[in-house]
Amino acid sequence: MTGSRRSSCPVACTLDLIGDRWTLVVVRDLLFGKTRFAELLESPEGIATNILADRLHRLEEAELVERIPSETHRARGSYRLTLRGESLRPVLKAVMTWGLAHLPGTRMPSPPR
Amino acid sequence: MTGSRRSSCPVACTLDLIGDRWTLVVVRDLLFGKTRFAELLESPEGIATNILADRLHRLEEAELVERIPSETHRARGSYRLTLRGESLRPVLKAVMTWGLAHLPGTRMPSPPR
Repeated sequence: MTGSRRSSCPVACTLDLIGDRWTLVVVRDLLFGKTRFAELLESPEGIATNILADRLHRLEEAELVERIPSETHRARGSYRLTLRGESLRPVLKAVMTWGLAHLPGTRMPSPPR
Repeated sequence: MTGSRRSSCPVACTLDLIGDRWTLVVVRDLLFGKTRFAELLESPEGIATNILADRLHRLEEAELVERIPSETHRARGSYRLTLRGESLRPVLKAVMTWGLAHLPGTRMPSPPR
């Protein structure tokens, strides 16, 4: 992957992984304890099935998420953040803090369950 | 803008403003003291002219950047972060810290000049 980097800047390289409208929304949900594809689809932002599948696939490729196969249903499975994925928590927190402070009407989402 | 929000989540709403591969790269350069369009174009990531123009325009619309017209050249001008834009510094710092820790080969960019 290093070969396709835009620069050696950690900001640019991190954005190549998480710089889009959806990835950190999925990471948020995984940090909040969601694990199943159907659960992730249910979030209020209304992520499309193909976008969710794509983002999970990219997160897996970047070793930020791991897929745990179901023992009973080969096609199903669940997802969880790796330690590397969990280390995005401060990034998510900074984004959340900025939004709460600067975008009126936003409010702390409550973790499911 | 509130009407077009995906949800009331501060993460999702913030990503609607800065969730792409380029916006925080431009914010990085403005925080580092670049002000002119041509200077912003010169960054190692090789941003395209139309993408830079689009991101500056969006940042202006979101009141994160202000354009200071040139007194001598009507078409030229410079850009600077508003206080609201500067408040993205902790977000940028969290992204930079994550990249430095988790993406081998990245290194702290040095501010121009």
